[in-house]
Order: sequence, then C-alpha cells, then structure tokens
Amino acid sequence: MEYKFSDRVQTLKPSAIREIFKYAADPEVVSLSAGNPSPEAFPVEEIKEISERILRERPIEVLQYSISEGYPALRETLKKYMKENYNVGTDDDDILITTGAQQIMDLATKTLVNEGEVIITEAPSFIGSLNTFRSYNAKLVGVEVESDGMSMEALEKALQENPNTKFIYTIPNFQNPSGITMSLEKRKKMYSLAKQYGVLILEDNPYGDLRYTGEEMPCIKSLDTDGIVIYAGSMSKVISPGIRVAYTIAPKGIFQKMVVCKQGNDVHTNVWSQIICNELMTKYDFNAHLQKLRDIYSVKAKYMMDLMDKYLVPLGITYSPITGGLFTMCTLPSYVDMPQFCKDAVLNKVCVVPGNAFLTDENQECHTFRVNFSTPTDEQLEKGIKLLAETAKKHIK
Amino acid sequence: MEYKFSDRVQTLKPSAIREIFKYAADPEVVSLSAGNPSPEAFPVEEIKEISERILRERPIEVLQYSISEGYPALRETLKKYMKENYNVGTDDDDILITTGAQQIMDLATKTLVNEGEVIITEAPSFIGSLNTFRSYNAKLVGVEVESDGMSMEALEKALQENPNTKFIYTIPNFQNPSGITMSLEKRKKMYSLAKQYGVLILEDNPYGDLRYTGEEMPCIKSLDTDGIVIYAGSMSKVISPGIRVAYTIAPKGIFQKMVVCKQGNDVHTNVWSQIICNELMTKYDFNAHLQKLRDIYSVKAKYMMDLMDKYLVPLGITYSPITGGLFTMCTLPSYVDMPQFCKDAVLNKVCVVPGNAFLTDENQECHTFRVNFSTPTDEQLEKGIKLLAETAKKHIK
Repeated sequence: MEYKFSDRVQTLKPSAIREIFKYAADPEVVSLSAGNPSPEAFPVEEIKEISERILRERPIEVLQYSISEGYPALRETLKKYMKENYNVGTDDDDILITTGAQQIMDLATKTLVNEGEVIITEAPSFIGSLNTFRSYNAKLVGVEVESDGMSMEALEKALQENPNTKFIYTIPNFQNPSGITMSLEKRKKMYSLAKQYGVLILEDNPYGDLRYTGEEMPCIKSLDTDGIVIYAGSMSKVISPGIRVAYTIAPKGIFQKMVVCKQGNDVHTNVWSQIICNELMTKYDFNAHLQKLRDIYSVKAKYMMDLMDKYLVPLGITYSPITGGLFTMCTLPSYVDMPQFCKDAVLNKVCVVPGNAFLTDENQECHTFRVNFSTPTDEQLEKGIKLLAETAKKHIK
Repeated sequence: MEYKFSDRVQTLKPSAIREIFKYAADPEVVSLSAGNPSPEAFPVEEIKEISERILRERPIEVLQYSISEGYPALRETLKKYMKENYNVGTDDDDILITTGAQQIMDLATKTLVNEGEVIITEAPSFIGSLNTFRSYNAKLVGVEVESDGMSMEALEKALQENPNTKFIYTIPNFQNPSGITMSLEKRKKMYSLAKQYGVLILEDNPYGDLRYTGEEMPCIKSLDTDGIVIYAGSMSKVISPGIRVAYTIAPKGIFQKMVVCKQGNDVHTNVWSQIICNELMTKYDFNAHLQKLRDIYSVKAKYMMDLMDKYLVPLGITYSPITGGLFTMCTLPSYVDMPQFCKDAVLNKVCVVPGNAFLTDENQECHTFRVNFSTPTDEQLEKGIKLLAETAKKHIK
C-alpha cells in the first residue's frame, strides 16, 4: 500500500546527526559527534540507593498512574530551587514536568504555532528542536549568532519582516552547537524586543549549571515581568538523559494548555525517574554533585582546547573558547569544502557534525563543524583531534 | 498578556474524567471512576530484583541516551512474543517502543492526519485517544457499538460519507469504556472494509491479555496481509502504568515516519523501564504472571457482577457482562437524567464516569455510565454499588 502521510511530516527526515551516528557506531571511529554526558558524571551510587529505597518503601506509588503535571514533590522542589538559585518563576507561572526537554519543544509548538507561522531561532541552533518545530510545519527564520549571542539587529529585522512570529527560540548558555553564551545586554534587548513585537521567548537552558569559567549570567526568564517567557530546564546533562526528565516554567495560561497536550502526548512522565530526581535534589548535596560535574568537564574542556591549540589552530582552524556546556564549534578557512572535509574525516576514522546540520536552511554555505568533548576519553580526544588535523592537512593550502 | 494559541488547541479541554478525579480524590468518596490496575497486580518483587541488578551490572546503559526505536533487546523480545502468541507482525512490519500507548495515538495522528481529516472511532471510545485525535484538529466520526462490537453497517456508511477518512480507531478486546469485545466476523469485516475503502486501522489492545472467560479472539493485525493495520500494545495493564512503556507494530513505511516524530517528541523512552520489561519477559515466567493477573481480576469481576445483579439490576439498571479488561458500562432506564444521576452519585460519595464523556459528540443524549472494578477493594466495591443503588432509587420511577 502507498501510504499518504500528513502534510506536516511529508518532508521530515531523520536528523543528520542520527545518520552520522551510524558511522560513529563503528568502534574504530573516534566520535566527536555525540552530546552524551560523560559516564563518570552519572550519580550511579545515589541512584542505586534511592531506587532500592523507593521500591522497598512505596512501590505502588512508583508503579501506579500519576498526574500529567508531574510528581507533586518534584514540582515543589524545582519551583523552590529555580526561584532561590535563578530567580526564575513568579506567582503567575506554573511548572510542568516533561519526558525530557524535547517534549517541551513539542508542547510549546503544538500549543502556540499554526502551520506556516514563524519561529525565530539562532542560526546555528539545536537540530532536535529545529526538527520538532519542522514537524508542525512551522516556518523557521534563523538569526546569525555572534560571539556574544544572537545579532540583535538581525533579530529586530526578522521580527519586522515576520509579523506572524509566535516565539523566539534561544539557548542562551553554552549554546548547542556553537558553545556561545549570550551577553546580559543582549538578554535584556531580546526581552524588550519580544515585548515590543508581542512575541514569546522559549528559553532552553540544559547547560546552565555547567559553567567552567566566568560569571554566571541571569536567565532571560528572571527578567520576565510580563509573562512572555517559557523556560525549559533539563535533568539530562546534570543527572541522566536515559531517565528522560525535564521541566518547563511557563505563564499559567500557557502551562494549562501544555498540560492538556501533555495528557494527550504520554499522560505523565515516568514516576520512578521523577522520584529519583526529587530525592537527589532533597536528600543529597545536589550543589556538590553539580560542582563535581563542573570539575570533571572543566578539566576535559581545558584538555580539548589545549589539543585544538596544538593541532588545529596552526592549520588555520579556529574555535570558540569553551566556557561551559559540552560543545564547541570549529571554523575552517573559507576556501575549504566543509562537507567534503567532514566526509574525509569519517573515512579517516574521526567523526564530527557538519555545521549546516544546525542551520534552518541546510543548503546555506557553511564552514563550521561541531565537536563534543564530554563523551570521549582523554585518549580518544587526543586521537580524534590528531586525526582531524591529519584530515585538514589535505584540505589546507 | 493575552496568549494566542494554535487553532488545534483553542477548544481543547482537560478530559472530563480528569475533572471527576478531583472528586474521586476525596477519601470519603468511593471511586468507581478510575482505570488503574489493582495494587496487588504489580510484580513488585520482580521489579525490585531487576532494578537492583541492572543498576549494579550496567548502570551507564540504564542512565545514558538511547535510540528512538527503543531498547533493542526489548524490541526483539516483543517481536517474537507477538508473533508466537498472536501471529502479529510480518517481515513488512517493524516495532517501535513508546512512552505509553497514548504516544502511539499521538504519533499515528501526527504522521497520518491533516487538520479536518477524519478518524472513525467506536462510540463510545477511550477518551484519552479521542482527546489526542482532537488535539490535531482531526474530525471524529463515531460509530455505534453493539454487543459484538462496532456496527458494520454504520461503519460502511461512515466510510462512504467520509472519503477523507485516514484510519479507523478500534479497541477490539474488552473495550474501554463499554467492556465489549468485537466478534471474529466483525474483525474480518472491518479489515475488508478498510481495505476496500483504502483506509488504515489503528488497533488498540491494552486489555487483550486480560480475558477471564470465553475463547481468545485473533487480533485484527493478525489478518493484515496488506499492511494496513497499526497495532498498539501496552505494558500499563500487565506490568505497570507508571513506567510508561508501550509498543506499536506497524508497516515499515509508517514505522519510519513514527520514529522521526518520536525523536521530536521525547527522543526515546525511559531506558530503565524498557529493561525492566525485557527482563520480566525473558528471565521470569511472564505467562504465569499474566495468569496471576487474570486470577485476581476474574474474581473481582465476578464479585462486581454479583453486586450489580443484587443491587442494580432489580432497579432496571443493566450492564454488559464482564469477560475481560477493567471496565463495564451500565445503562440507566431511558427516562433517567444520566448527568444528574452522576452528579447526585458524587454528592452521595460514589463516583462513576458519565457515558457521554466517551462520545465523539459529548452533547448527544446518553444513558450510560462507566464503572471500574480493578482499583477499589472488595469492601469499596460493595459500598460503592450500594451507594449507586441508593442514588438510583431517587431517580427510578
């Protein structure tokens, strides 16, 4: 039978990263293309303890149906945590626990965006979110990212040219894929532009707790006196991605619609996972855990930058300094054919992600590629960067 | 700020059942309105053992990112299980693990149905699925359910009148809410009508393993030589709903689109849950576990029917005999104001679900209400049915 799919999924493709992962699965290939937390970053002992305890003390609560808004104690814990630590959340906001932050992208788009309406995103931006937006036939408008975040001139122009914009999607901290953090000035400017043009902001902050150098920057949501920011937080990078727990703090009107859509999406998030997160945050020293992660990753980030300084920079390949998160973006000299370089790299047994995968228009000219330093071991990092340099030498004049 | 929501969610409401649950949360109210498995039905000891073991032996696998299709070993186990036990699945099908069966409804609708296109459902049908269909602005056409399943004359008429039908949604076994099972003859007829009119069938089978009396009936999917049936199976009623694990066996072309949408929905299903299910099915006697569930529920079903025979039937309230699943539907004499009866019942401290909640048009005249027998204790069942009889006496001439 010839299946007739809905218009919204006619042109949907599996993500380019996913295709690259097939090569990366070859154990001989050094993968700098992933975005997984480091195995040593998981709080394994704590999760074992908690899991054993909750399955012994309250198994029925863990295994029975729960409510769509999320496990009540975790909602309270996160509400308090985000208010006290980041001044995120007001009396006009509410909190919804989701099955990973990907679901927040889905619920926000479903709730707010008709087919053909516009979502403005950073260019480049996180491919998973872009694909979710595409799956609702939203029109994506990419705005160039500078070294201190989205270009505000280009953002204002995009807002002027697209009066049917529903929201601006931004990852302000250690952005995936660029690693770039938005300046405070630009955060304030983005907020005021959103307010002026009557659009919402979807602030995606999975890496906020993973800052290795420099001063902490306020969340855009902490400036939200007008109820125009939807905040997305995630446990994937700070506890575990396999447990699929994230949360959104959003104005109550939007929260309510998202809850109804969440009900139709997967009823509620896995209960075991939610209790694990709540216990970790309340019965253990969660700040010490976050500090441990920062210690692990800042050493790896420094090591990665040393390798790139030694092997790539002399060849004319630049990168944006790693101040947090799990990624950075390298830029090839403009005469190098980047897609060909990435293909040659894979044949040479090192895998990176071509930068155009993260653009709203994948056919745009692009000279960047993304590298990750959290997943590989130090040995793999060294081998991978050396292989990249070896590949680059064939392309560099 | 006045939020402007997408057209698809403008009229979405929280489910009526959800509202009723607020009353049911009052500990003084006997709730016959739930659909939760009985606490004694959970394989608590097995899950404790498995969880302890997998977190000890392979914690990183449990906590790390996984793939959208599902945990590979569980996919293999279920593929084999469904083929051997139910002849479900061909070489042209593939299997996707989802975050509960609700997500299958979401993915099937998203993948196949444009706004305004038609989904034909049983009337009454499962409210959770109806609401998911509504959340994509699908047009719902309800087809009357007879004592042996959907009326085939009405189904054919609906197919003739709605050439833009994308699929027929059916719960053939112990349907929620009616408890009715579709005859083999009607299963074959539905399949041939779907083929004739070029539409798909979405077969939702959460209760199939919970048959208490009578002969097992083949799945519609087992007749699927043309690649037109999407099968939805679930662990919620046979292992645990809190773990959110279900699976769909679908023609490969549809499977592939659903995988891409699943990626944009929540990336992948919780890994811990998937491994729990796989271990339960492969390292324990899963058939013995299912038999234990049938033993528990068939006793409860018999007890419930005895109570209804004793207290409700003499008042002219009929019910459809329970042969499996977790529900039955009671029918009031046609002169009784059913919504008023349900309201009075709640005030009288017993909670049931008004039948119109399950209709595609909630404003249709309706004389039924749904009762559940799996969640309450025997004492609660007796108390609840007595309270219903007491309420009914005020309404019965």
